[in-house]
Amino acid sequence: MKAIILSLTIAFSTATSAAPTLLVTEDALATFSASEQTPNLFDKAYQKALARVERSMKEGIVVPVPKDPGGGVTHERHKENYKIIHDAGVLYQIDGNPEYAEHVYKMLDAYADMYPGLPLHPERKNQNTKSDGIGAGKLFWQGLNEAVWLVYTIQGYAAIADTLSSDARQKIETQLLRPVADFLSIESHQTFRRIHNHATWSAAAVGMTGYALGDQALVDRAILGLDGDRKTGFLAQMEQLFSPDGYYTEGPYYQRYALMPFVVFAQAIDNNEPDRRIFEFRNAILPKAIDATIQLSYKGKFFPINDAIREKGLNTIELVYGLSIAYGLTQAPELLSIAELQGTTVLTGEGYALAKAVDEGKAKPFQFKTTLFRDGEHGNQGGLAVLRMGDSPDAQTLVVKNTSQGFGHGHFDKLSYQLYDGGNEIITDYGAARFLNVPSKDGGRYLPENKTWAKQTVAHNTLVVNETSQFKAKWREAQKYWPTIDFFESDADVNVVSSTMENAYPGVVFNRTLLQLKLPNTAAPIVVDLLRANSEKAAQFDLPLYFDGQLVQLSGDLKMNTQQVNVLGNNDGYKHLWVDGQGKLGDSLAQYTWLNHKSFYTAHVRAPKGSKVVLVRTGANDPNFNLRNQQGFIFRAPEKQKSASFVSVIEPHGIYDPAAEFTADSSSQIQLVEHVAVEAVDLIKLTFKKGETVVVALAKDADKSASHKVNFQGKNYQWKGFYQVFRQ
Amino acid sequence: MKAIILSLTIAFSTATSAAPTLLVTEDALATFSASEQTPNLFDKAYQKALARVERSMKEGIVVPVPKDPGGGVTHERHKENYKIIHDAGVLYQIDGNPEYAEHVYKMLDAYADMYPGLPLHPERKNQNTKSDGIGAGKLFWQGLNEAVWLVYTIQGYAAIADTLSSDARQKIETQLLRPVADFLSIESHQTFRRIHNHATWSAAAVGMTGYALGDQALVDRAILGLDGDRKTGFLAQMEQLFSPDGYYTEGPYYQRYALMPFVVFAQAIDNNEPDRRIFEFRNAILPKAIDATIQLSYKGKFFPINDAIREKGLNTIELVYGLSIAYGLTQAPELLSIAELQGTTVLTGEGYALAKAVDEGKAKPFQFKTTLFRDGEHGNQGGLAVLRMGDSPDAQTLVVKNTSQGFGHGHFDKLSYQLYDGGNEIITDYGAARFLNVPSKDGGRYLPENKTWAKQTVAHNTLVVNETSQFKAKWREAQKYWPTIDFFESDADVNVVSSTMENAYPGVVFNRTLLQLKLPNTAAPIVVDLLRANSEKAAQFDLPLYFDGQLVQLSGDLKMNTQQVNVLGNNDGYKHLWVDGQGKLGDSLAQYTWLNHKSFYTAHVRAPKGSKVVLVRTGANDPNFNLRNQQGFIFRAPEKQKSASFVSVIEPHGIYDPAAEFTADSSSQIQLVEHVAVEAVDLIKLTFKKGETVVVALAKDADKSASHKVNFQGKNYQWKGFYQVFRQ
Repeated sequence: MKAIILSLTIAFSTATSAAPTLLVTEDALATFSASEQTPNLFDKAYQKALARVERSMKEGIVVPVPKDPGGGVTHERHKENYKIIHDAGVLYQIDGNPEYAEHVYKMLDAYADMYPGLPLHPERKNQNTKSDGIGAGKLFWQGLNEAVWLVYTIQGYAAIADTLSSDARQKIETQLLRPVADFLSIESHQTFRRIHNHATWSAAAVGMTGYALGDQALVDRAILGLDGDRKTGFLAQMEQLFSPDGYYTEGPYYQRYALMPFVVFAQAIDNNEPDRRIFEFRNAILPKAIDATIQLSYKGKFFPINDAIREKGLNTIELVYGLSIAYGLTQAPELLSIAELQGTTVLTGEGYALAKAVDEGKAKPFQFKTTLFRDGEHGNQGGLAVLRMGDSPDAQTLVVKNTSQGFGHGHFDKLSYQLYDGGNEIITDYGAARFLNVPSKDGGRYLPENKTWAKQTVAHNTLVVNETSQFKAKWREAQKYWPTIDFFESDADVNVVSSTMENAYPGVVFNRTLLQLKLPNTAAPIVVDLLRANSEKAAQFDLPLYFDGQLVQLSGDLKMNTQQVNVLGNNDGYKHLWVDGQGKLGDSLAQYTWLNHKSFYTAHVRAPKGSKVVLVRTGANDPNFNLRNQQGFIFRAPEKQKSASFVSVIEPHGIYDPAAEFTADSSSQIQLVEHVAVEAVDLIKLTFKKGETVVVALAKDADKSASHKVNFQGKNYQWKGFYQVFRQ
Repeated sequence: MKAIILSLTIAFSTATSAAPTLLVTEDALATFSASEQTPNLFDKAYQKALARVERSMKEGIVVPVPKDPGGGVTHERHKENYKIIHDAGVLYQIDGNPEYAEHVYKMLDAYADMYPGLPLHPERKNQNTKSDGIGAGKLFWQGLNEAVWLVYTIQGYAAIADTLSSDARQKIETQLLRPVADFLSIESHQTFRRIHNHATWSAAAVGMTGYALGDQALVDRAILGLDGDRKTGFLAQMEQLFSPDGYYTEGPYYQRYALMPFVVFAQAIDNNEPDRRIFEFRNAILPKAIDATIQLSYKGKFFPINDAIREKGLNTIELVYGLSIAYGLTQAPELLSIAELQGTTVLTGEGYALAKAVDEGKAKPFQFKTTLFRDGEHGNQGGLAVLRMGDSPDAQTLVVKNTSQGFGHGHFDKLSYQLYDGGNEIITDYGAARFLNVPSKDGGRYLPENKTWAKQTVAHNTLVVNETSQFKAKWREAQKYWPTIDFFESDADVNVVSSTMENAYPGVVFNRTLLQLKLPNTAAPIVVDLLRANSEKAAQFDLPLYFDGQLVQLSGDLKMNTQQVNVLGNNDGYKHLWVDGQGKLGDSLAQYTWLNHKSFYTAHVRAPKGSKVVLVRTGANDPNFNLRNQQGFIFRAPEKQKSASFVSVIEPHGIYDPAAEFTADSSSQIQLVEHVAVEAVDLIKLTFKKGETVVVALAKDADKSASHKVNFQGKNYQWKGFYQVFRQ
């Protein structure tokens, strides 16, 4: 490293001093000081911290009275300050330069002067209205931000605590750190007692403060809960907030965020109380959750299900921490390729070891796997099925959302799906209506259109009954029900998931089976989708399909509206859809081809006889241009039916390379898709232009031992179990 | 290289054999055979050729009777065949493997059997209707494709000619090569006599065939024209098709395409008749044109003015050839960074040398420069002003289209502009309405919407008078007029171009001045735009501004249409615009902010008192979804005025990084933009929120020696020359 470690080994020796350890251990510091050459990723993080701290040292201490909401000046200032405190503390640990320690001290001292007199934040009422009682902060409008502030700040404090006089320590501890910890726990007891990621941030903040202050009672409060009974607190959160597969019920976007306090606090626990074996707790749920977070992504971005900001991905700081910790635990070389993608690491011993291994060329490709991530504390509340054909980052990936609701950030989109192929999103999920931290967009909060559009069922690729959203878009009601996973199987050439949902609509049961199928005669795997719905009362069934790309070809009837465009409906998201065109589906196959980047995709659709198709685009009733532009089809069964079946086949084909002036196979290779439902089975027959046929046979019953036999077009199809694919 | 060169050095020795040289010289072949390690880029090209040829050798000879239009099976087959012939010939030169030579022979023999009996191509009438008499082909629907076919094919033939018996040579020469050359010149004499890039392809094909067949008359026909008088043919094309600055009047997209036959034929000339000093001809116009082609790009893509396919860029094969030749002439290390971007090279001696230099790490960044590319044979027909602030590939770039019409592929958009910043297109040009080689999109031809939308004035960022296009969208009329370049100057902190257009509309004169201005208090340079129009008769003035991004903020009146959207007008492109919203501009400043990738941009606009603004989107009257979605504002002066001035300031600001949860300066830093026109000057005053002011003073007269003095808001502004920027 660039500078010598002054008295650090003494200061941090547990034998001679009570200087607290949080994330950076004595061993790590010894490694840093012994190293000749700083590993690249570590150096990047180091240089970034150095730039931040030196900028701040030039600027001086700026600790304004809290005033602004998210994205505003004081909000961003206090966010920057906790990073400065953290980074300067770590720099001091690495370099031993007392100026860094002094900067941390001055900043903390300024906070200690201000904090005791602070009321609740003036903008607390303007935060996103929470029906669930999440509390306000003092430094920030949300208590959540305050907990994050303390998680970072306490690390900076721990790093320099031994440089301070006991008076200085006392002032900072009694006027700042302990009051913030108490505010987050005792005073915000409703939040602190929740089994929720906000409470995990609070637990981490309080527990780490306990270690830093040598106060085991604070630690226990965090780990065992406010009442010391393990019914709340960190262990309870570890038990209940992840499914046994490491899936976090709110979805990947929140999983990433939720992960941070778990892994950071767990590491502090492991460094201070290794006997707790925190990383082994609940069958190693935290390492499992870190792996799951990586798996829930495509090309570095998280699947944007539920209230997700689409740009978020594996390079977020939460996962940079998570990855270093996972690497510290496993030394798995597959993790190193994710570190390369992140392009940085954290300034801890684990980060250092990881960066060194990357420099040594040890990285191996991460193995993305077909997985059913079961949802719910006990893994029995549905699940997210991630079907991948191949393990490369570009491999076709089908994400099927057969999960439970995921609380208030959940969307009403049971049995919805998304498709990625060739590195791009092909069948899309809208994500959240939100522009993070943009003041002019409601200060970066969820926009009204998040509720009126993004959460609504019609915004997703799944069944809408009677133009209303599932569960009438009430999440507390939705929280009570989830789909059954009837079947899940993964082979080299075929992945299958089948799921059934009841109670999303009164008296309606619907089932969806999705197959991802590798065929010798298609450029990439095809997707076969069968959605069947039954209703006690006659109803209208709509099935939307949102795609990304430029329409280039269609067969069947679809007339564009050329002179005037109107809204599709009035309620439950329909009012945000412009009707660009419409047509009759009739009894024949409809084929729609679009161009996405360099590939073509054709959706072959068979809907009930008499169905219509509507080509829609988001943007209606959007006076503040809060919506992105998204195109889709809505397949609408004839009104007043008691059942409906929709078959879609999504076929990737061809290549479009205008730079090389080369285009091939821009037309679909599939001539015909037929569907017949006979007694207990459905047969879907694809006929390729070159003559081959593929018949996908699906039983209505997922029983693996049941035998089925059916005659179709003069040919017998016979199989055992839920499905069979016949190729001729 | 991987194989020994059998008898090649003898076969290609000019001393002992008449084997023809086109692009690959004897010296080059000696270098290949002497080399131990194939340079990377060369090897990539080699491997690609190898894959193509081996695939073809497995498949056998496929020479179908011509039948299909562009993008169809026989069209693509004959395109693939000429590449196979070329590549197999070059592979034979490199490796000496007689199988490659035999494959070329078989292919050529099959063509020689078919060609004499071929009629004109059956699809010739379905090619894009040409009012200018470009002829049909036989192998392809267009003669142009046929010329390209011969340019490639003749190289393959030359490479293997010495392996053939004289009977075989005679059959191929008399039944195929000479007939094609005669068809392209004598039989298609109208095309061949033109001063047009199609004719250059023909000249190259015919001239290279002349060298290969040892027929100087054919060579002269190509170089001096069909009548041998130099009024047509290659030299005349070199004299007239590029401006003295190496600008090709149709624009960069066609410049790239036009370049190929020029550089390939020139190299063949130089190899066979070095005394012609073809690369020095007309002050080295060809090297100049190659450099210009690179300069006319941003982040690897060409400026999409006129009928351009937006995806085309520096990695197209034409420029891969051009670059290798330019490097052969200059050895300039800046060209190597472009080669790295291209990722390949050509299988010639020049390509080899370039690839070797890249491997040796000699590449330096290409210097992108602020340049006025004068248009017209004599450089007096306006010009394309490319204003860059910095020479990095991401540097802000303002492209101002003050050129002449550019024939039938020109758009009617005099004094239009485009803006790039931070690596992205911010103020956009639509380019062409065309999907290259997609059969379902009219076979990849220019779509009807190219004429009804893309070419029309309202599709561009420039003045529209009375909702009609400039020159009534008649290119022959437009070809007669061009703007004057009144002023062009480039400094470190400011670039300025000013231009005036008459005759685009009867009785209307309009002038536009654009400044690119680096200021200490903005994230990136700002653009100041003053457009002034005067009409003899009262008229309606519209000024569109098309942007890329998501609107996030606006001040001033703009009401979105929430329930219904209608078309803006009926003619001249207006019928393709949906009206998403509208408002009154009044007398106050309008400010519109959008988010483009990670930056914000605010357009500050002052239009004449009583103006309106319309927020538009392309897509109306588009029954076949041929248009891309593009958003823009149209600033509309009050009806029946004789003059109008529009001032716009485009300000980049802030950063949006959702991965890092960081947003800053999403609001504009400019509080006020004022405009006053006093006598002979215009003053544009910007007041920043922090108090600084910047006054841009512009004289109406570009005279550099004229002195100006004006009082504005109690302050005197005094300067000499066309413009001055006052900062306080």
